[in-house]
Formats: sequence, structure tokens, C-alpha cells
Amino acid sequence: MELFRLLSAHPEIKEVFLYSSSKAGQQLTDEVQHLYQIVNQPLRSLEQLPIDKLDVLFCSAPSGVSTELLPPLANKNLKIIDLAGDFRIKNQDTYRKWYRKEPPPTALINQAVYGLTEWNSEDVKKSDLIANPGCYPTAALLGLLPLLKTGMIKPASLVIDAKSGISGAGVSPTKGTHFSQNNDSLSIYKMHQHQHIPEIEQTIQRITGIDTKITFNTHLIPMTRGIMATMYAELDEDFDSQSVKEIYEESYSNKHFVRVYDERTNLFTKQVYGSNYCDLTFAVDDRTNRITVVSVIDNLLKGAAGQAVQNMNVMFNLDEAEGLQHSPMFP
Amino acid sequence: MELFRLLSAHPEIKEVFLYSSSKAGQQLTDEVQHLYQIVNQPLRSLEQLPIDKLDVLFCSAPSGVSTELLPPLANKNLKIIDLAGDFRIKNQDTYRKWYRKEPPPTALINQAVYGLTEWNSEDVKKSDLIANPGCYPTAALLGLLPLLKTGMIKPASLVIDAKSGISGAGVSPTKGTHFSQNNDSLSIYKMHQHQHIPEIEQTIQRITGIDTKITFNTHLIPMTRGIMATMYAELDEDFDSQSVKEIYEESYSNKHFVRVYDERTNLFTKQVYGSNYCDLTFAVDDRTNRITVVSVIDNLLKGAAGQAVQNMNVMFNLDEAEGLQHSPMFP
Amino acid sequence: MELFRLLSAHPEIKEVFLYSSSKAGQQLTDEVQHLYQIVNQPLRSLEQLPIDKLDVLFCSAPSGVSTELLPPLANKNLKIIDLAGDFRIKNQDTYRKWYRKEPPPTALINQAVYGLTEWNSEDVKKSDLIANPGCYPTAALLGLLPLLKTGMIKPASLVIDAKSGISGAGVSPTKGTHFSQNNDSLSIYKMHQHQHIPEIEQTIQRITGIDTKITFNTHLIPMTRGIMATMYAELDEDFDSQSVKEIYEESYSNKHFVRVYDERTNLFTKQVYGSNYCDLTFAVDDRTNRITVVSVIDNLLKGAAGQAVQNMNVMFNLDEAEGLQHSPMFP
Amino acid sequence: MELFRLLSAHPEIKEVFLYSSSKAGQQLTDEVQHLYQIVNQPLRSLEQLPIDKLDVLFCSAPSGVSTELLPPLANKNLKIIDLAGDFRIKNQDTYRKWYRKEPPPTALINQAVYGLTEWNSEDVKKSDLIANPGCYPTAALLGLLPLLKTGMIKPASLVIDAKSGISGAGVSPTKGTHFSQNNDSLSIYKMHQHQHIPEIEQTIQRITGIDTKITFNTHLIPMTRGIMATMYAELDEDFDSQSVKEIYEESYSNKHFVRVYDERTNLFTKQVYGSNYCDLTFAVDDRTNRITVVSVIDNLLKGAAGQAVQNMNVMFNLDEAEGLQHSPMFP
Repeated sequence: MELFRLLSAHPEIKEVFLYSSSKAGQQLTDEVQHLYQIVNQPLRSLEQLPIDKLDVLFCSAPSGVSTELLPPLANKNLKIIDLAGDFRIKNQDTYRKWYRKEPPPTALINQAVYGLTEWNSEDVKKSDLIANPGCYPTAALLGLLPLLKTGMIKPASLVIDAKSGISGAGVSPTKGTHFSQNNDSLSIYKMHQHQHIPEIEQTIQRITGIDTKITFNTHLIPMTRGIMATMYAELDEDFDSQSVKEIYEESYSNKHFVRVYDERTNLFTKQVYGSNYCDLTFAVDDRTNRITVVSVIDNLLKGAAGQAVQNMNVMFNLDEAEGLQHSPMFP
Repeated sequence: MELFRLLSAHPEIKEVFLYSSSKAGQQLTDEVQHLYQIVNQPLRSLEQLPIDKLDVLFCSAPSGVSTELLPPLANKNLKIIDLAGDFRIKNQDTYRKWYRKEPPPTALINQAVYGLTEWNSEDVKKSDLIANPGCYPTAALLGLLPLLKTGMIKPASLVIDAKSGISGAGVSPTKGTHFSQNNDSLSIYKMHQHQHIPEIEQTIQRITGIDTKITFNTHLIPMTRGIMATMYAELDEDFDSQSVKEIYEESYSNKHFVRVYDERTNLFTKQVYGSNYCDLTFAVDDRTNRITVVSVIDNLLKGAAGQAVQNMNVMFNLDEAEGLQHSPMFP
Repeated sequence: MELFRLLSAHPEIKEVFLYSSSKAGQQLTDEVQHLYQIVNQPLRSLEQLPIDKLDVLFCSAPSGVSTELLPPLANKNLKIIDLAGDFRIKNQDTYRKWYRKEPPPTALINQAVYGLTEWNSEDVKKSDLIANPGCYPTAALLGLLPLLKTGMIKPASLVIDAKSGISGAGVSPTKGTHFSQNNDSLSIYKMHQHQHIPEIEQTIQRITGIDTKITFNTHLIPMTRGIMATMYAELDEDFDSQSVKEIYEESYSNKHFVRVYDERTNLFTKQVYGSNYCDLTFAVDDRTNRITVVSVIDNLLKGAAGQAVQNMNVMFNLDEAEGLQHSPMFP
Repeated sequence: MELFRLLSAHPEIKEVFLYSSSKAGQQLTDEVQHLYQIVNQPLRSLEQLPIDKLDVLFCSAPSGVSTELLPPLANKNLKIIDLAGDFRIKNQDTYRKWYRKEPPPTALINQAVYGLTEWNSEDVKKSDLIANPGCYPTAALLGLLPLLKTGMIKPASLVIDAKSGISGAGVSPTKGTHFSQNNDSLSIYKMHQHQHIPEIEQTIQRITGIDTKITFNTHLIPMTRGIMATMYAELDEDFDSQSVKEIYEESYSNKHFVRVYDERTNLFTKQVYGSNYCDLTFAVDDRTNRITVVSVIDNLLKGAAGQAVQNMNVMFNLDEAEGLQHSPMFP
């Protein structure tokens, strides 16, 4: 829905078609009351889509679906942006282990570019198949990569404590997404076992050359949107607060969607609500020689649909921020 | 903040200046972290504003402040849109009774146009001073006026049960706006005594000619934004569901921001979150010959800043929806 | 769960057995983590229950289940308290219309006593089969009965605007109970069609002799527990604030669980959280000659399990408040 | 309020007197509507308290107040339980550094016993002055002490990521406790600078002999009550999941209020809501040789009032769980 909302308002998009395997023929607004009288189009089956005339296809399905759906559509003069996990993991055994599914064909996996735009825009620009990053990896990697690349922190010491709003748990009604279960309560889940772990490790390896294993836990917070990653590492002794701040500013000075705050700013997730920003702060603890890095995103925007549109912009040589320039909405 | 957000993204606005009596000289972003690196301007004193060059001035202060601030600025080739209650009530004794404050000068009160755009756009177009409607009156009146104007309901039977998110209670930290007081709880306040009562009654009188007194109660809901008005009246016996639906569709068919849903739709406030829409439904109760009308708005948009921008658009002969065309944000 | 919690801590209860049709054999704590190491007993099938040795059986199933389950167990030296709607409605056609189910056998319906303890304790005391009231009817009736019985309000003018926390929508995960659907949002549902309407009307008739039809709407509030009923009626002209207050105090002076607050108190649902209290206030509107009555309960306590235990106490000649004397929990 | 609620229902408490410096003379229920008709006593000045006849005095004031208030009352045949930070820190310079206040007299600091009941009950039993632990330290220490004491984890590797409901931020209305600021949002605050850090380090030192410095961050969660501490450490290579589980069970097998769950249980804060339990789980990460320990408490019970009553029970040779035996309340 967020993707649709963004594309509908995007100045360079002429027309958007909606595909649904299970609900083809229904009006979108049968399901989503808030778009009543705004959207007047049916959900289509694959056959009803004018594939030949499309420039770009976004696929946002539960993991495993893209593996079936996308191979026949790839390499057909159609750029594809996949928002699921299927094409993110290069090593097929790793994929099998963490996703407990069969991976897509090797050729396509190799072809897919990991769309962490701020760190990969040259490859994104040339690609026809984007594996759009997961929500947690986006928040974590944007915070960590500047420090890892410059050797400021010790990779083996990395601990990531991640917190997400409940929209991250999907739209299916389950015991775990029931209001009464989550309201006024905070939970931890998938301890050390979240499938985003290999995605983070692989990207660290590919971008910084560092081979490391991270400790990573995820929590559900009684809020709809938003992710905060609180990250801990030992700081190499040659560095201090000022050098950390400089590295961040250098890394992101010309990146529209990453905002670097002063050390020890009390970040909160709602400061990026509804926007494509990733906001960062950090604090150096002289007592323990550790650094805490904090990153917040809107999981449905920078953590999913927003970053997908950002990648589309880059793929089509548009301004990276086109259609994404609205401020966060607060309160 | 919402007003500023809307104006910053408005295609016809060249420049926005920010005035603050108490914080002139400070950067806006000292207070509002979410606009960091988006807004880079100081809050100004009145003297620092280039009044001569401004086209329009929005005033959004606690009630009583506009009474002091605006008279010297009125009738100076500057259109004014006041978001407070000061200029809404025509009868000065009524104002004194409900606001417990002295009203502004009579000439200005008479000059002020009540900016319920859907019902008053001809007057808004010609006006230089708009009293922008209150949040509750906007939700209530858009639901009631079609039925009152056509004589479908009995005015004396009107009961309005209004519910608001807590942003409606202002930004000042008080016992009443404390998180722990409001979270996981629902409260009633100002029973029969809310200052929006005379505003609703006056507007009913001016638009439909009906002199009536309403019963009106307000509740605080544990959510940030959103208003729902659930309204009850006896239905004149000549009418039924179909005629009610027709009257609503007729009244709002060419109004961009009012969406009429089918009878008995389960409306929810988040279906208008972040948008300028007012969504309506109703249900006729054949057992009691009563009708329930339900109206939802985002109190900060259609209930305040959004409607103010809508009025500005009309005043300057722009498309009514300019700068307000974004979809609601859900979930 | 609340019932089990209350009974486990009740000083006069020797042993509690748990029955489940679908999960017999499982440990209760497989489902309910918060009772780990507190409860160590399995869920039992009907056959595994020592029916002969039981003094009282509580049945808390979706409506329709008791109709099947309870008839074979009735009139067997076992007192039964049913928390569902099955035995509440005396008129079988009314039951069929509102519940769209077949009612239980006539003899049992006639035998069942409606357990609104404050108004029916003499009958409760002698009964072997209690139809425990619904959550909305409990809140509404405790507020209305004193005024209706004394003729202070005009029955035909009655409007009830009811609001409930989401635990009232059941434990099943559905689109309607999903966190992201409900969080930060307020919805209206079942307009004029809630099955609690005939229960309220029937009880008004039986206790005050007044035959009337009510207008009744229900809303879901983004909170777990709590019900507020905001009720509107025309006040007979012979009465004023003081006489209303007197009638309430007279009606409930010796009722442990009904607290009458001063006129125009800002009641909130959390002031009864976790307790068996029903708190009441009211406001007389001299402008419209209408009265607003406000009632708040914890829907899981006074609106279900708490009132069931209160009824049990009365049935067994215990102190009405036994095992229910804990204060509300705030914040 | 929670303390008062617990003491009022405690079977061994005869009478409770309430003291307030600022509101002496007022009825308690002027402030706390939920106790209306339950409590009928005024708040008293110090002079109005029958100090000679009291057995125990609880002091729950902002830090710094006890330093002024308690010294004249100490050692007077009156047991004192202080819930603030004033008497917790043994090293006066440490106290000055983290609290930015002058500490109480040395003799009293030395006399004060740190009331982490599960680890200190022998000293508590003999004490007349208890420094009741802070909310975060209670959650953290109960999770960490078994592993530190047995040398299973490397102290220098300790990272504590703590999350609290907003009742932990106090009852004063501030920008930071405003509903609209916190609702649907998650924030980090006091990075590396929370005054509970030296309390945790000191207690580790005193109970295990280990001198270490911890990295500790705190977050505000949009919920009223509850704390979760997610804690990370390197596991000594001699240990595995099973040995960890055994150590926990051994440490807490006879401790009423600590429940040890299976490895990798999805704990959530509401499973201890309204109760004095501290629930624990853990997960060993074989990939990184790190262990994650998770601890949840109700910050107002085990993190404050509940533990205070638990200490009182021990001081007066009552059953440790007296008056605290209610189950958690869920949902």
C-alpha cells in the first residue's frame, strides 16, 4: 500500500497497475477503505497485466513467492525491484538455512543487485533486477558501514539490538499480531535467528571486505511503524567522538536521506514517520571504550517502499529524491 | 507544524516565514527534531517579519492571542487566516460566555468569514480575514448540514458524541496530556461545556436558518490524531436510507475532500490520517426512527492546517486541492 | 483467563478445574505464558471433569456453544453461571433475530436468572442458572436504571454511545483485531445492530416495566480493556442536578461495586482497570433539557468475569465482594 | 500509589498513613480518582504522622529528598525502606558524579542495605534501613548475577540494552512524558549516562567480587508499565545452553518471584503486568559465542513498590510473598 501511495503521487509515473494472485478482479478499495475514491482500479491477474508496456515491476510478496513468480519475467526489457528476501542472499546454502526455502536460479541471484542505495548506487543504476534491502538491514547497515569501512570499530564485538513496530510483522492476523497481545507490551522474538542476520553479514563483507558474525536480536514495540537499531561495538582506541562525527558527515554529506545528528541526541522513531529518512546518532563511552550507534527509519518507507522508489529513481536516472521529498509527519 | 509542513511542500508557495513571540531567534529545529536539515530558518519576532511583502498570514495561537495580535495587521493588503477561536463567534456575549475572554473589535468580527470551505467558498474567495473552523465543528457540520438544510432531521433531537486524539489537547505538557494518564484509557471531558458548541450552533443557523441547541460531549481517545463525531437525530418520517444517501452524494459530489461511504460502513479515524479528507457514513435505525451520522477527519489537517491551506487556495483562486492531494497514510 | 485468575485467588474456592473442548490434554500454560509456574494443571475434556463433585460451573464460550453444552448439565445439583449470550434473551424470536442462532430449550431459558447483581440479587440468590450480563448492557443498565425506574428521563429519547477496548472483540486473530488496524485509530462497528440491544431493552422492561427501543452504537478504542457508555436522554422537567444525584446515591449507597461521582466528573476507563467497579457520573444540560450519563467498567471484570464471581458469591451466600476487593490498578 | 495499593490489601498491615510535603491536608482522592470511596484519608504533614507508633516507613520521593528527610527519622525503632536512589550508592564521589547531588551522611549510607531481596535477604532481615533497588538494576541484576557469580560470562563484554514503559519517567508532565510525543514512537535517552549504571556495577562488585564497567542504554517504549533488559555477553567457552539453564534454575529454584523460562522463549513485558515477578530467558548464540539474557519486570512492582513490600516482609519475618501473591494481569 505504501508503495502504491508513493507511486501514485510520483511526478514521473504515468500509470500504475496492481497485480494480485489471490484477489484478481476485486477492487483494491474493497480491501483498503482509506483509498476509496482515490484509486479506481481492479486488482489484476498476471495475464491482465500489459507486461510489454511496463517499465518497472515491483514485487512485494511473502518470501518464496518471487522465486516462483519473477524468473519468467526477468531479462525482458522490464526492470524489476523485488522487496522480498528471495534475491538478497548470494550463497544458496545460507539462503536455505535461514529461509528454509529453495533459492531462485543461480543466474538470477548473481544478476541481482542489493539496493542499499546510499552504498550501491553505481550498481543500482546499471541493474535490471534489484533485491531491495530488508528493513532491519537498512537501519543497521546505514549506521555501521561508515565505522566498519574505516576500521573504527572491532567487527567481532558487534551487537545489534533491533526494535520494530508491528507493521513489520505483516498484515496477516495471527496471535502475534493481535492488538491485545501487543498493546502496552514489548516482546522479544527470533533470538539470534532472524533471517536478516545473513543479509547484514553479507553486505558488510561485500562493502567493507570484513568477514564477521553479528549478534542480533529483534523486538516488537507497541507502535505501528518505525525501527530503531541500537548497535554496540568496541571502538578502536585511535578514535574519539569528533573523528566519529567526521566520518559520518563525510559518508553522508551528499546523501539526501541520511541525517547525522549530534552525538547523544535522543532520537525517536516518529521523527522519520512517513518519510524516507534514516536518522543517525552515536555516543562514545569513554568508561568502556565502546560506541553506541543509533539508527531510526520508517520500516515501511526507507525500510521497504521508500527505498524501492529511491532505487527506481536511480535506475531511471531521475533525481534520487523524486517523489520522496515529503517531510516526516509529527506528531 | 502541520501547517508549515503543508506550506513547505505547496507548489505555489515561494517562501514561508516563521513567527514566534516567545522563541524569536531560536532555530525551529531546536524544538522540532524531525525537521532537522529540512528547515533551516530561525523563528522571527514580529519586527523581523517582512509584513509588506507577505501575501498571507496564518495565525495559530491559543485563543485570546489573535485578539491582541491581528487587529493591527488587518486590512493591510495581507490576507489573514486565523486558526484560533477568536474570530469565529459573531455574538460577543456568546464569545465571552464560552471563552471567558474579551472578544476582538466588532468590525473585525463582522468582517471575518467562517472558513468551512465546502459550504462557504464564495465568501471565502472574497475575504481577507478567515476564521478557520474548529476541529470538532468541521467534523460535525460536514456530517449534519446536508440533513439539516433539507429538513430531513429534527434539529431539537440532535446529539453529538465527539471523540478526539490527544493532539487536540495541545502541545503543553499537563496532567491531562501525560502519557500514563491517557494510554490504554478513554476519558470524557468538558461535558456540555466545550467552546465549540456555540460555533456549531451559529453555523447551523447561518447556513440553514435553523435556530437550535445541541447536546455535545467530547472524549479523549488514546491516539495522537483523528476525530470521530457520532451524531444522532430523529429522522423525519418522509425519508429513508436511499434518500439520505442521495442527499449526501448531491451535497458533496463535486467536493474534493468529502467522501461519502455506503450506509453502515465501519469507518475508522486512521482512514484519513495525514490527509485533508472528511469521510462520512450513516445508518438509519428503522426501530427507533433515528439516524446515526458518522464523520471522521484528521484533526490536524481537515480540522486545522489542511482546511487553512484549502481556504488559502480558494482565496487566491488556486485549485482547492493544491498541495493537499496526498492520500491518507495507512497503516 | 480473568475468571481463572479471580477464582484462583478467591478465599472460598478450594479447587478449580479447567475444561476445553479443543485443547484437552494440553497444559494451560502452553497457551498463557503469564501463568507459568502459577498454574500447573492440564485442560480437561468434559469426561475428565469430576462433575459430581463440583459446586459451580462457569461457561465462557462463544455464543451458541452453551446452548449445546449446558442443557445436559443443568438441574444436577450444580450451579451454573453462563457468560455467553445464549440464556440472556427470554423471547426466542428476538434471540433468533439478533444472534442468528437457535435458542436453548425454553424451560432452561425461563429458568435462567439475569445476573445483574445490583438489581437482581434476590433472584440470583435462589437461582441455579445465571445468565451473566453482557459487557455493554452492564455499563449501560447500571447508569440508566435509577433514572428510568423513577421516571426522570423519557425512555423514547434514549441514545447510547458505547466504546470498548479491543479485548471485547475476542481473542481470535482477525483483520479487525490486528494491531496495525486498531493502533492509533478509533472505529465504529455494528451500527444499530449489536446483539446487546435486545438484552438492554429486555432488562429495562423487566426491571422498570418500561417498553422502549434504544438507539445504540458501538466503537472500538485503541486500548485493551475498558468500556465507557455515554448515554443521552431528555430529562423530565421536574428534575434537576440535585435530584439526579440523590437518586443515584439512593440506588447505590449500599452497593459495593457502584461508585457515584460528582456531576461532570471527567471519568476515564482506567480508573476501574482490573477491578469490579462500575463508576458513574452525569451532567444535566440546562440549555437542551437533556442529561448525559457516563458509566465506565473494566469489560473483563464487571463486564464479565468479575460480575460472574460476584454472582457466585451471592448464590453461595458469601459476601458479595469476596475475592473481588482489590483496588483498580493505575496507572 | 502502587505501594499504597499493595499495603492496603496486605493481610499483616493494620493501618497506613500517607505523608505529603506539598499537599498535606488534601484528600488523597482529590488527586487519584481511582481510589474514590476506597481510601478515605487525608495526606498528612510530617507533624501529623504518629511516628512513634509506626513500624515501618516507606519513602518514595524524587532523588535528593530522602537525603533531607530521613536522617532525623533513622535509628528510632522504625524500619525505613527508601525507594529513591539516595542510599543506594556507597561511594560518595560516585553518587555526586551520577546524581549531581550531595549524598546523605556517611554513617547512614554505610548502614543502608541494598534490598535486592533474592540476593541479599540475610542482610535485609537484619536491617533497619533499606535502599530499595532501582527498576533497571533489578531487571538487569536478576538476569546477570547467576552467570557472573559462576564465571560463565566475561564481565568486560557486558552490554545492557534496557527498555522501559513511560511510568518510569515519573508523573510530572513534561515534554518528554507528553502523550503525543511518545505514542506510536520509541526513543533512546541518557545514552551511557543513566544514574542506574553505578548501582549495577556496585552490586555486581559486592555480590560477585567482580570489578567491571558496563555499557548501558535506556529506551522509552510507548506503554505505561514494564521493563525489558536485553543483555549481551561473551560466554566462557566451557559452558553451553544446558549448563546455563541449570545455573539459573539452581539460583532461583526457591525464589518465589523469579521464573526461569526455557531458552529462547519470546518473553513480553505484559506477562508480569501488575505482579512482582521477574521472568527470565536466554539464548546462546553458537555462531558468535555470545549469550543473550532477557529479563522482564513490572517497573512499578518488582521494580519499585512490590520489591519494597517484599523487603518489608523479610524484615518482619513474614512470608516473602505475603500480600504479593496475585497473578500477572493479562491481557
